[in-house]
Amino acid sequence: MLIVMKPSASAREIDAVVNLIEAIGLRAHPMPGATRTAIGTTGNQGPIDGRRFENLPGVAEVIRVTKPYKLITLDLRPEKTIVRVGDATIGGKELAIIAGPCAIESRDQAFAVAEAVQQSGARFFRGGVWKPRSSPYAFQGLGEKGWEIMAEIRKTFGLKIVTEALEEPHISLIEQYGDVIQIGARSMQNFSLLRKAGRSKLPVLLKRGMAATLEEWLLAAEYIMAEGNYNVILCERGVRTFAQHTRNTLDLASVPAIRRISHLPVIVDPSHGTGSAYMVTPLARAGVAVGADGLMVEVHNQPELALSDGAQALTPSEYAQLITEVRAIREVAAPVCQGESKGEHA
Amino acid sequence: MLIVMKPSASAREIDAVVNLIEAIGLRAHPMPGATRTAIGTTGNQGPIDGRRFENLPGVAEVIRVTKPYKLITLDLRPEKTIVRVGDATIGGKELAIIAGPCAIESRDQAFAVAEAVQQSGARFFRGGVWKPRSSPYAFQGLGEKGWEIMAEIRKTFGLKIVTEALEEPHISLIEQYGDVIQIGARSMQNFSLLRKAGRSKLPVLLKRGMAATLEEWLLAAEYIMAEGNYNVILCERGVRTFAQHTRNTLDLASVPAIRRISHLPVIVDPSHGTGSAYMVTPLARAGVAVGADGLMVEVHNQPELALSDGAQALTPSEYAQLITEVRAIREVAAPVCQGESKGEHA
Amino acid sequence: MLIVMKPSASAREIDAVVNLIEAIGLRAHPMPGATRTAIGTTGNQGPIDGRRFENLPGVAEVIRVTKPYKLITLDLRPEKTIVRVGDATIGGKELAIIAGPCAIESRDQAFAVAEAVQQSGARFFRGGVWKPRSSPYAFQGLGEKGWEIMAEIRKTFGLKIVTEALEEPHISLIEQYGDVIQIGARSMQNFSLLRKAGRSKLPVLLKRGMAATLEEWLLAAEYIMAEGNYNVILCERGVRTFAQHTRNTLDLASVPAIRRISHLPVIVDPSHGTGSAYMVTPLARAGVAVGADGLMVEVHNQPELALSDGAQALTPSEYAQLITEVRAIREVAAPVCQGESKGEHA
Amino acid sequence: MLIVMKPSASAREIDAVVNLIEAIGLRAHPMPGATRTAIGTTGNQGPIDGRRFENLPGVAEVIRVTKPYKLITLDLRPEKTIVRVGDATIGGKELAIIAGPCAIESRDQAFAVAEAVQQSGARFFRGGVWKPRSSPYAFQGLGEKGWEIMAEIRKTFGLKIVTEALEEPHISLIEQYGDVIQIGARSMQNFSLLRKAGRSKLPVLLKRGMAATLEEWLLAAEYIMAEGNYNVILCERGVRTFAQHTRNTLDLASVPAIRRISHLPVIVDPSHGTGSAYMVTPLARAGVAVGADGLMVEVHNQPELALSDGAQALTPSEYAQLITEVRAIREVAAPVCQGESKGEHA
Repeated sequence: MLIVMKPSASAREIDAVVNLIEAIGLRAHPMPGATRTAIGTTGNQGPIDGRRFENLPGVAEVIRVTKPYKLITLDLRPEKTIVRVGDATIGGKELAIIAGPCAIESRDQAFAVAEAVQQSGARFFRGGVWKPRSSPYAFQGLGEKGWEIMAEIRKTFGLKIVTEALEEPHISLIEQYGDVIQIGARSMQNFSLLRKAGRSKLPVLLKRGMAATLEEWLLAAEYIMAEGNYNVILCERGVRTFAQHTRNTLDLASVPAIRRISHLPVIVDPSHGTGSAYMVTPLARAGVAVGADGLMVEVHNQPELALSDGAQALTPSEYAQLITEVRAIREVAAPVCQGESKGEHA
Repeated sequence: MLIVMKPSASAREIDAVVNLIEAIGLRAHPMPGATRTAIGTTGNQGPIDGRRFENLPGVAEVIRVTKPYKLITLDLRPEKTIVRVGDATIGGKELAIIAGPCAIESRDQAFAVAEAVQQSGARFFRGGVWKPRSSPYAFQGLGEKGWEIMAEIRKTFGLKIVTEALEEPHISLIEQYGDVIQIGARSMQNFSLLRKAGRSKLPVLLKRGMAATLEEWLLAAEYIMAEGNYNVILCERGVRTFAQHTRNTLDLASVPAIRRISHLPVIVDPSHGTGSAYMVTPLARAGVAVGADGLMVEVHNQPELALSDGAQALTPSEYAQLITEVRAIREVAAPVCQGESKGEHA
Repeated sequence: MLIVMKPSASAREIDAVVNLIEAIGLRAHPMPGATRTAIGTTGNQGPIDGRRFENLPGVAEVIRVTKPYKLITLDLRPEKTIVRVGDATIGGKELAIIAGPCAIESRDQAFAVAEAVQQSGARFFRGGVWKPRSSPYAFQGLGEKGWEIMAEIRKTFGLKIVTEALEEPHISLIEQYGDVIQIGARSMQNFSLLRKAGRSKLPVLLKRGMAATLEEWLLAAEYIMAEGNYNVILCERGVRTFAQHTRNTLDLASVPAIRRISHLPVIVDPSHGTGSAYMVTPLARAGVAVGADGLMVEVHNQPELALSDGAQALTPSEYAQLITEVRAIREVAAPVCQGESKGEHA
Repeated sequence: MLIVMKPSASAREIDAVVNLIEAIGLRAHPMPGATRTAIGTTGNQGPIDGRRFENLPGVAEVIRVTKPYKLITLDLRPEKTIVRVGDATIGGKELAIIAGPCAIESRDQAFAVAEAVQQSGARFFRGGVWKPRSSPYAFQGLGEKGWEIMAEIRKTFGLKIVTEALEEPHISLIEQYGDVIQIGARSMQNFSLLRKAGRSKLPVLLKRGMAATLEEWLLAAEYIMAEGNYNVILCERGVRTFAQHTRNTLDLASVPAIRRISHLPVIVDPSHGTGSAYMVTPLARAGVAVGADGLMVEVHNQPELALSDGAQALTPSEYAQLITEVRAIREVAAPVCQGESKGEHA
């Protein structure tokens, strides 16, 4: 059930609706928008009779939700969500760039990359501290030692730190030292991790699972939001298909498909989405042209020596070139993309 | 590195090798076989110089492992692993049948199904206590209440309990009340959960991920074994493809493919593998004919009322018919399958 | 539109319906069954008003067809079609075995294999005369020279010849020298070839396309039948997925899925379906257990020297072993499979 | 075998090499380039001893080809092929736009669309005269009547006509009335059709098959080129995956992947690549940004009444907007894409 308030509804009227929702044992999710507030409800077993809300002061409309999702929808919030991370944003006018190495390997490596990232004007630094690896015998990340380096980078370069949580305790550590919690493709349906991230104050970057349908991906976001954390960023990183010229098949159509359903920002990861450095820049351009709100890119000061994913990492100079190109595309694409995200385009 | 002992090696000689492995900071995984013991080693960063082991008393051969896996391989253990759960086995002569509802919904439902399962001669009862659901608003399982019912079933019917662990704390609960820890398709690469299961005394049933390659699946088993738990059962449950006449595409070729590489037993889940009750029995027959060591089948006393996966659940009488048919196939297939699992067939 | 005649309808009454169908510019497809005849109609643009047929003598029921197919359905013909090729059958009690080399390479090779095929009791010999190869530089088949060899084999061993038509003129040649027209996976949607095969007197073996949905495959059969050729045999040969341990993923669930919709016989090709000789026999067993009406198997006297697909070809002795095993499975599976094909199983 | 001539080689020296190739029973494929001519050879069974060519006057180098393709490669022709169709080009500076309805339905429809296409500045008009349809009962195109309309459009609007050939006789008709032969996704491995197109003087637009690997697609182009027709344009139109939010998954990474291997131009079809009108423009922008040489777009004057593929057709005004957007992107992307196609980008 979704309760849309009148544009003229007062804060008190909104509170009254929220209170009634909670009084009947449900959870209220008020979403203030540019012109009106809508309130989602979760926690019900089966349909609720919405009529008792219809006559409350300030209520414009009570909508029964028949789709599998509630909180991610444009019905609840017609404007795109702008996720704020300090003074940086994802989903607004700014093209969000999240760049850095696959894994933090050493202070020297991380600093060399962070410098390139800062110089490019990007606001976010990515780097794995714990790495999910297919083999138990592969490099699993520096763990605690990695955090010390990350904390220093955050302070030295003023970059926001994005790192992946693999287990619930990681979330508290990211809350302490980082800025954005990343949920990786392999964890997209790790529901207890999603719920834990949903109880965090930090924004969550949710990667699409390797074989996830759009619906499953959006429902994973719904898991996070149902716990009260509405700052979710979706990240398309390619899906598994029969194709062998890439590591994954980057499904850029997911960007307009999400725009049509959801207010959440979407970014594209052309590094995992292709698996080969020479394809990263062309696909980054495509990602921006299709209307993504940002990019996540792997950069390494010495890709040939990287302990993981070296084949897909750009050198700092290739990365600088990528940034120049995508900014030029963004300038052209931004006006039309804004129109599309508002659903103004037929 | 893999150290193969001579058939004549004494327990003391084996211990000496194990001690040396541990002395240099690695972990030893001795696997006693019908004719000889082999000892796997894990924990090394980069290759180890195996020559120091070659001249130890009782050592027949030191093999450098170049494949991504070590402990799951036929090199380490040429005979198939027989997983023992009390007096029942998986991987031996017996066709292992694991049957039960998708989720424990009520005492009545669980008892009705358990009775049918016991009558069929099956030894294992499956039933979800916590359910991984794509939507946060779908039925998530009975939780603790489910465990009470399960414990009663175990006692009343003498069936071994197989249930899925979604989070690390679930494993301790299964250790207390159940017999086999199931790791579901969505958790196949939840590496911390795998490691936790690897430190359990209970056997682990590891389902194939929805988009997992054979190598990724076997490496997930390797994660469990690397922690010291060698009782792993693989379960083929279908993969995601473009096909729309089934929920998943059951990839029965994975059974002979695993046989050729690994000593681990493999079972087939035709319920998730097809998603439609009318296909379950034919695919169960196929699974036994291809050489699987067992089946995992969903049964419900009233499929039309099931809270989850009702479309793929068999009624008790359909299930009884399935058992009759697969036992007849098994009788014919068993002799040749045994040959294949020993690699005797070209 | 589908007109079901009463069990008591006379030949004259049936003719009258057929004549009226043709009089209004459509094509009639009468399908005599065990208890009644049904008449399919094709050639209409848009829906037909069936009421004018309802009161004709002998008409039991007029059914408007809303599914995309008409002639392949169990509605039109509730009993399974038995395709007769001389004294051999496909779809009846007999397990149909079609065996032979991928391509006819030489008289010696073909005769060596044909002897093994005959000795196994199989009735059909397969062998490519024209080979569809991904590369223009690969061996493309012997062409005319191949036909001389095939004709000799047919005469010497009394085997029915199954060979693939790649172009329309091939069909006339097969009509002259062979017994069954094979339409390969790559040609499944070569609609002009399908129509040409639909105007032939010979049965058509229609392989599933590499990425064909069930509906597309059945519609391809419908193309053939709409031209008047009702002797179509479907052949599951695997589909393309992300899996890398096999050449294709054999989708055995298509067998019961087809049974539920169509009266056409279905066979399984475990050679293309796996791509590796060691998997062919286990998957052949599975194919028979799931309820297929037959198998298509590649055999070569010297697989290591084969000019195409050697990796998946069985030696004559492996093939003999396969036959023994699948006959044993068939004996067990046949009774239940018959039930399923009549839709008697829930 | 590939014979690279010196930049200084004379026409006579080139002829002498060609003559020797033909004298030993092979076919020569001379490809003049900006700085030198290279000569591909086809028709050999097994490897050729290239040494006899090494000392001929004008020969710079003899390269043994170990890849499965010869004529499509950058080794043979380092500059991108520019396909010329009258005064229009595909693969050069111009962004090639091929637009029009899925099928020619009537003179009125075709003329209304053609006018919009011409006004947009596009040079190519697409429109199906024969339609490959999954169902035998669906609209199959106007056939001959369609050609009359096409011929009129060509004359009235000065647009180049691109239409699909489904059977060999269609090719002669396109040669008579059209400008570019399209080979559709379902025909990508119809090898006799490819060979026939390879003997035409008209350029061939080769769509990627629904489940074609990059290698299979390039080998299909090789089939055409091996017959002597070097004017091949590749068209990415999406592949079949598990994704359900689109008709196909548009694999834009194929564009840089082809650039790295082949000199052939590549265009993108966002209409089939998505299946939904609202996604066509964003994916068209992405296609141009990734570096494609052109676009193929479906336009209909009344999409809601279209006899085929209406859901993915743009209205003339949506199409006009698309053209504005992609031209803006092209202006930004062209300089860097040129660099990439010359392999100058790391």
